[in-house]
Amino acid sequence: MKDSDFSPKNETLPEDDYSFGNVKNMTREQLSVLCEKLRNAILGSVSRNGGHLASNLGVVELTVALHRVFDFPEDKIIFDVGHQSYVHKLLSGREKGFAALRNLGGVSGFQLRSESGYDFFGGGHSGTSVSAALGFAEAEKLDGGRRYAIAVVGDGSFTNGMIYEAMNNASKDGLRLIIVINDNDMSISKNVGGMSRYFGRLRTSVGYYRFKRNFKSRVSNLRFVGKPIAAVSKGVKNAIKTVVFKENFFENLGIDYIGPVDGHDIARLEAVFREARLLESPVVVHVCTKKGKGYKPAENNPAAYHSVSEFDIKAGIVRLESNEIGETFSERFGRTLTKLAEDDKDIVAITAAMCEGTGLDKFKRRFPERFFDVGIAEEHAATFAAGLAASGKKPVLAVYSSFLQRAYDQIIHDISAQSLHVVLAVDRAGFVPGDGITHQGIFDCAFLMQVPGMTIYTPETLDDAEKMIIEAVSLQGPVAVRYPRGGECKYPRESFKEKRDFRYAEYGSGKRVTFITYGRTVKCVYDASQLLKNRLCVRLVCLKKVKPLDYTALYEVCRDSSLIVFCEEQIKSGGVSEKVISELAAMGLRLPRMETIAVNESFPPHASLEDMYKIYCLDGRSLANNVESITRC
Amino acid sequence: MKDSDFSPKNETLPEDDYSFGNVKNMTREQLSVLCEKLRNAILGSVSRNGGHLASNLGVVELTVALHRVFDFPEDKIIFDVGHQSYVHKLLSGREKGFAALRNLGGVSGFQLRSESGYDFFGGGHSGTSVSAALGFAEAEKLDGGRRYAIAVVGDGSFTNGMIYEAMNNASKDGLRLIIVINDNDMSISKNVGGMSRYFGRLRTSVGYYRFKRNFKSRVSNLRFVGKPIAAVSKGVKNAIKTVVFKENFFENLGIDYIGPVDGHDIARLEAVFREARLLESPVVVHVCTKKGKGYKPAENNPAAYHSVSEFDIKAGIVRLESNEIGETFSERFGRTLTKLAEDDKDIVAITAAMCEGTGLDKFKRRFPERFFDVGIAEEHAATFAAGLAASGKKPVLAVYSSFLQRAYDQIIHDISAQSLHVVLAVDRAGFVPGDGITHQGIFDCAFLMQVPGMTIYTPETLDDAEKMIIEAVSLQGPVAVRYPRGGECKYPRESFKEKRDFRYAEYGSGKRVTFITYGRTVKCVYDASQLLKNRLCVRLVCLKKVKPLDYTALYEVCRDSSLIVFCEEQIKSGGVSEKVISELAAMGLRLPRMETIAVNESFPPHASLEDMYKIYCLDGRSLANNVESITRC
Repeated sequence: MKDSDFSPKNETLPEDDYSFGNVKNMTREQLSVLCEKLRNAILGSVSRNGGHLASNLGVVELTVALHRVFDFPEDKIIFDVGHQSYVHKLLSGREKGFAALRNLGGVSGFQLRSESGYDFFGGGHSGTSVSAALGFAEAEKLDGGRRYAIAVVGDGSFTNGMIYEAMNNASKDGLRLIIVINDNDMSISKNVGGMSRYFGRLRTSVGYYRFKRNFKSRVSNLRFVGKPIAAVSKGVKNAIKTVVFKENFFENLGIDYIGPVDGHDIARLEAVFREARLLESPVVVHVCTKKGKGYKPAENNPAAYHSVSEFDIKAGIVRLESNEIGETFSERFGRTLTKLAEDDKDIVAITAAMCEGTGLDKFKRRFPERFFDVGIAEEHAATFAAGLAASGKKPVLAVYSSFLQRAYDQIIHDISAQSLHVVLAVDRAGFVPGDGITHQGIFDCAFLMQVPGMTIYTPETLDDAEKMIIEAVSLQGPVAVRYPRGGECKYPRESFKEKRDFRYAEYGSGKRVTFITYGRTVKCVYDASQLLKNRLCVRLVCLKKVKPLDYTALYEVCRDSSLIVFCEEQIKSGGVSEKVISELAAMGLRLPRMETIAVNESFPPHASLEDMYKIYCLDGRSLANNVESITRC
Repeated sequence: MKDSDFSPKNETLPEDDYSFGNVKNMTREQLSVLCEKLRNAILGSVSRNGGHLASNLGVVELTVALHRVFDFPEDKIIFDVGHQSYVHKLLSGREKGFAALRNLGGVSGFQLRSESGYDFFGGGHSGTSVSAALGFAEAEKLDGGRRYAIAVVGDGSFTNGMIYEAMNNASKDGLRLIIVINDNDMSISKNVGGMSRYFGRLRTSVGYYRFKRNFKSRVSNLRFVGKPIAAVSKGVKNAIKTVVFKENFFENLGIDYIGPVDGHDIARLEAVFREARLLESPVVVHVCTKKGKGYKPAENNPAAYHSVSEFDIKAGIVRLESNEIGETFSERFGRTLTKLAEDDKDIVAITAAMCEGTGLDKFKRRFPERFFDVGIAEEHAATFAAGLAASGKKPVLAVYSSFLQRAYDQIIHDISAQSLHVVLAVDRAGFVPGDGITHQGIFDCAFLMQVPGMTIYTPETLDDAEKMIIEAVSLQGPVAVRYPRGGECKYPRESFKEKRDFRYAEYGSGKRVTFITYGRTVKCVYDASQLLKNRLCVRLVCLKKVKPLDYTALYEVCRDSSLIVFCEEQIKSGGVSEKVISELAAMGLRLPRMETIAVNESFPPHASLEDMYKIYCLDGRSLANNVESITRC
């Protein structure tokens, strides 16, 4: 099913009283009230549904100014990563769906073409907006149109290489392309790298913005407008002037630069955007915003309020202790790796702007010199890990499944082709609730299975995970340990029998049906077995490792079944089930019918885990019904 | 099999008289003789074996200077893309294997860890060297060592985003990292984009190199050494001074910069590298070289001599007409698309520095405004195509299979998840002779099969390809047409019967064996069928499309077989055969044994097409033997 199957059904949504009017006709006073209403709407919905808070509070004035200067949907706007598009959603008629933000049927937490004619290009991975906006701008130029394409990019996305690839292609005359840098000095965590420090210098340097189209012919075009946005000492100011006024990173690439400008001053923003329009050629507008603006707890701790679960607006978010919510796989991973690193000084940890999310914060504190956060740069992260491995280190790269897709080529070309020992800690593998199509970890098994020499562990319990991480670090060649968001499921596991690559249990009696699955989905199958056990003998096989796999042993436990059902919260094509089925088929043995229940030719929408299981018929009830209908035939 | 299985067997190689001695002890005169000998060695081997000529002739002095200043293998050097490492190979004891360059058993045309202790990191895709070198440098820093990691990067690779991701992480004190920019103003074709123009400004600007560690504290450190390498008018010089001496692209990222320096002056190069060593922190050394240096035909036409087949040194390469060597799939693609574009103004073509290679040169000449070469930036290319599609254009993105791996996430996240109609023209799909492990197009079926909504055409003939390209442009959603390097195979096709998704033929009589295959590999199966037809009835099924596929129709043609054999010059895991087998297994029907002959858990080495078919048992003789041994059991 395509994302279009999950467009919000406004008529069924709870009513809310947000109504934002036409921003183009408002007075300064009305705009001020509007911004407060927008902030309340965001706080209200995010505190109930979870979501991205601090970044959206930071772009209220910026988005309002863009809506005043440009004409949407004729002009196009793309928010990089898209999680800061809430204000845009509210200003483009989605206030009703916004009340059910991130829930099935409500608006997505990211931009989605199927959701609205005002979402021109969707996305949840970093660095795509300028490439896409350049596509719009080139199409407009070919058609002789005069509309603008605007990419709004957080400074965090400037750690990503795609932005540069796009900017390198953007320096053409006649392209109506505006790149707005939303500079809040943060990605999810604090930003890293040389570019971030460069933004820092630009940001604190000037009290005026400048407007200089091209250093060669128009160096005299320098203009000074407005008043200082930051008090800086004269000394610093002079030192930095050397940088800013003689040459500039963006102008080196052939793109005009205007900025920096106060991102909370609508009048100034409007003036700058009107000037940017006049250029009719690619221009960077550098806007400084404050993450969490208007909500004190978020202003004071923007990292904590980047992406939040539901919380009390008055009290703020309360960080729960692990033992209250149960330990997560990420925490167990971080704890295990830190412990291993105490005894093995060659272990190094790498992540791509996901330090807290992957549970590496503990490692970072304990071994700061052996920890590398490379920014939102999965491609570099994988090859950097390969370089460390080639130097005799034992690199462990912790990345979310969906973002690891970015490093597919590097895993093949830099790690596998050289048989280098890099451990991939693949977090958020499987369904990811709330975030929607761009964040689902549904491809990792399929794309890692292809990689020559790859070992893939699929822990089902926290103890599995710990054991497998230890084993992974001790192996050779490329290894992945993949586990879901959250913690382990609770159900009785006593009856399982252990084999090297899998464990299995049997429930009920009668005609035998075998389920083969791995990871968290085992719980779904367990639920199904409890519903079926009065009628059938259900054998449950839980794979601990999906590659390499002892197919002979696997054949032994499922040979006398009348049906084998594979269950995966993964894409079906190229996944584990296809591999296992074809290996069994090559054995030349008599085999029963083999079915696969998995994600087929579609992307799961933003929804709860339970909703997604139901959509894909992976919940216990659906699995049981499915088997019943097949075995009745 | 891993690359290590194919390390050169020096004892079996033809003798040659290259002997290069220890460069560290040579006088200036001896060095001059050495450089001539190196050029002769390169010309000799490349003219016999084919390979990368112009870029290697350009880096002779640069490589010699690096070998004089640094101590390999203690210091590490990585050539980006690796095709310009021939001089390094000759200077590190591989002169014998070099005579059989690019042949099975001879040295690879790229760096290969398994080939020599002097190849520290392999690779054939652009932009990985700085990431890997940073890995070496960080490992060295952790171990308290004082050795250097050097990345030699062509200016063409600066169109690639990985370089920036790495540079963004490279601005740390105490890292012994040297990034040598080998600036010859070319990638394969003429370079594109803002960064290329920036290099142009740097290159023509100064007659001295400068050495300025940090703009803030050491602005006075500016030094002037040497004499002009390019005569420039005083006016231009002054204008550019503003740029170069006040701020610099690399220093914005926090990396020191030295340059530009004449890349053919060994003494000056040595002086610069010795200075770079002293820094003990990351530094860019900007070296200007001339592609093809020392061989006039290559100097005059470096693009034609970038990658060559065998040629006569005296006569130079002679461009054969299409009808002499037979039309290639690339040519047919280019011709077909150009013709389509005459009638459909929405068709636009995109490539990533592969204009000539993909056959788009004709399109470029006819529709320059609808042609986009984005540089070595496959990630951007795919998302840019998605942006164009979202604007109503019909983008066709032509990329080699192996490089398309770079855009795996963008194909999923930007094209498929939004159901956008982008046509991928996947060139060099399947085995690619000569270039080796990094250039094999063996993953495209597997990774494209996973992509929701993807249609994949697998033409076997040029006429197939033409028809499928026309069909692909008329469809909706993501579509790929994948075809091999070179032209179609010759054999009698008259007996084929046509179905919608496949064609099939039958040879001989007796027990029936069915082969299922697609693309060029059909010829291998045809050869096998001719060897087997006296003993067996061989049914040959040639898939025209591997996704979506009419499995019911396919079942009908192979149901009454005693054995089904899938043949793919593709990776086995996640490939077409696994998909087909599992779909047939889910039908609940009685099926025979099903085998797959494909690339299993390995990378094909640099070798001829025939050699690779033999290595993977895909040649007609091996296939026939395989079937005979199974059917005899």
